[in-house]
Amino acid sequence: MKMYSEQESDLVLQKNDEKVNIAILCEYDGTDYLGWQSQKNNKTIQEKIQNAIFAITNEKVTLYGSSRTDAGVHAKGHVSNFISGCKIPVNKIPLALNSNLPDSISVKKAVIVPLDFNSRFQAKGKTYSYSIYNSPIRPAIDRFRKHHIPQILDASLMREASDKICGEHDFSSFMASNSEVKSTVRNIYSIEIIDKRPDITIYVRGNGFLYNMVRIIAGTLCYAGLGKIEPGQIDDIIKSGDRRLSGKTLPANGLCLEEVYYDSDIFNIAR
Amino acid sequence: MKMYSEQESDLVLQKNDEKVNIAILCEYDGTDYLGWQSQKNNKTIQEKIQNAIFAITNEKVTLYGSSRTDAGVHAKGHVSNFISGCKIPVNKIPLALNSNLPDSISVKKAVIVPLDFNSRFQAKGKTYSYSIYNSPIRPAIDRFRKHHIPQILDASLMREASDKICGEHDFSSFMASNSEVKSTVRNIYSIEIIDKRPDITIYVRGNGFLYNMVRIIAGTLCYAGLGKIEPGQIDDIIKSGDRRLSGKTLPANGLCLEEVYYDSDIFNIAR
Repeated sequence: MKMYSEQESDLVLQKNDEKVNIAILCEYDGTDYLGWQSQKNNKTIQEKIQNAIFAITNEKVTLYGSSRTDAGVHAKGHVSNFISGCKIPVNKIPLALNSNLPDSISVKKAVIVPLDFNSRFQAKGKTYSYSIYNSPIRPAIDRFRKHHIPQILDASLMREASDKICGEHDFSSFMASNSEVKSTVRNIYSIEIIDKRPDITIYVRGNGFLYNMVRIIAGTLCYAGLGKIEPGQIDDIIKSGDRRLSGKTLPANGLCLEEVYYDSDIFNIAR
Repeated sequence: MKMYSEQESDLVLQKNDEKVNIAILCEYDGTDYLGWQSQKNNKTIQEKIQNAIFAITNEKVTLYGSSRTDAGVHAKGHVSNFISGCKIPVNKIPLALNSNLPDSISVKKAVIVPLDFNSRFQAKGKTYSYSIYNSPIRPAIDRFRKHHIPQILDASLMREASDKICGEHDFSSFMASNSEVKSTVRNIYSIEIIDKRPDITIYVRGNGFLYNMVRIIAGTLCYAGLGKIEPGQIDDIIKSGDRRLSGKTLPANGLCLEEVYYDSDIFNIAR
């Protein structure tokens, strides 16, 4: 997949009368939205950004999203793309869109990508975080971004359990019941648990995720951390394919899409 | 000042029919409030906590606050106290109050203190933080807690300027105009600047603060970081006593009361 530098992107936009494919990197606070994907007459992030694109280009585009985050889920690195005849230099697009977006959504970068690029189908992997506030007392300032668990979590048991989840497995038992999907096999590359009490943050990196999968993984790790299941049971839970054996689906507020990976570093983010 | 252990506090509450003085440690998200101090028919943090105390004790108390934070200002460690005949064991008070408080306010600890303790007049010092999001692009998730500055700040210039502010001075030029106060002399013990771009956090610790003083100090340090004033000018700005020479008052959303200090560590917080 050929990528353009920011300067080349500008040239593409200025020289070419044809349409171009623009990828954008977004941060959003999902608290007040019904999720990413447009729904009739409902407040979604896709809708808000499409409206902002219309405001600056006069084009009614479809914005293709890498992840259809649920209501209340946040993103620090959501990627999406749209086809446009827009003549605005690509490096001006973030500020132009941001001045037409609510404060809870911010476009951080925009780049020109090949016409056949699709932010969802070409994604090679994603990192999600799940944030827990582990204290007998509930949080106030971070109430929309951390899930409160009052009982003490044992982080070493959580890590033991997370080691068993990593790898390529059929994750049927970590998928919301009644989801329809071609394959339930996914590869979890790594799970990292950062323990800075009262904050415990779980970072899950994988090639893809089933519906509610990160929230169920987080719930299962918390069951391990509370002693409700033993880390050794994880193998059997995976083998069973039985959703009833894994932990509960933790609420949306703790979940955040951190990053989406492609063959090349399309936004030039140093890692 | 004699302090009681948590167990002794319980005994005091159970044995004594007299009223006791209860100090509470609170966290709050100031976004939706008109500040700490009660005002007629307005939404304030003091009002909400007094109502919660009434709900659990049936007593209409006055809650004495260590700091009258302004509208939109947050707190992680606000201290206040009230006199009560309440018979609830002191370690149960936080959860009892929290179940009667909005999610944006959380009581973290409660302890019995001597009857003559006043959270405001006995405070020996306070730490405030001022959080800046230093990036060309505005923040979305942290928009209510960080002040956005798009131009690049030079943290070393900010630190040079902060060194000049530390110490005991007449801080008239760092006080909102027309404030009425007996003395404008305060002692700033330390200013720490944590630079983790895009986040820059300024921690200011002092024996007391004039009206808007931390927000003006933060504004002045940002002027230094932007090259609008030189660190060497700070001495003259202090000497002048002229509010017009210091930096602008930064907005409330970046400010947070981190901690209030007393002669003894009343909440047994290990530092």
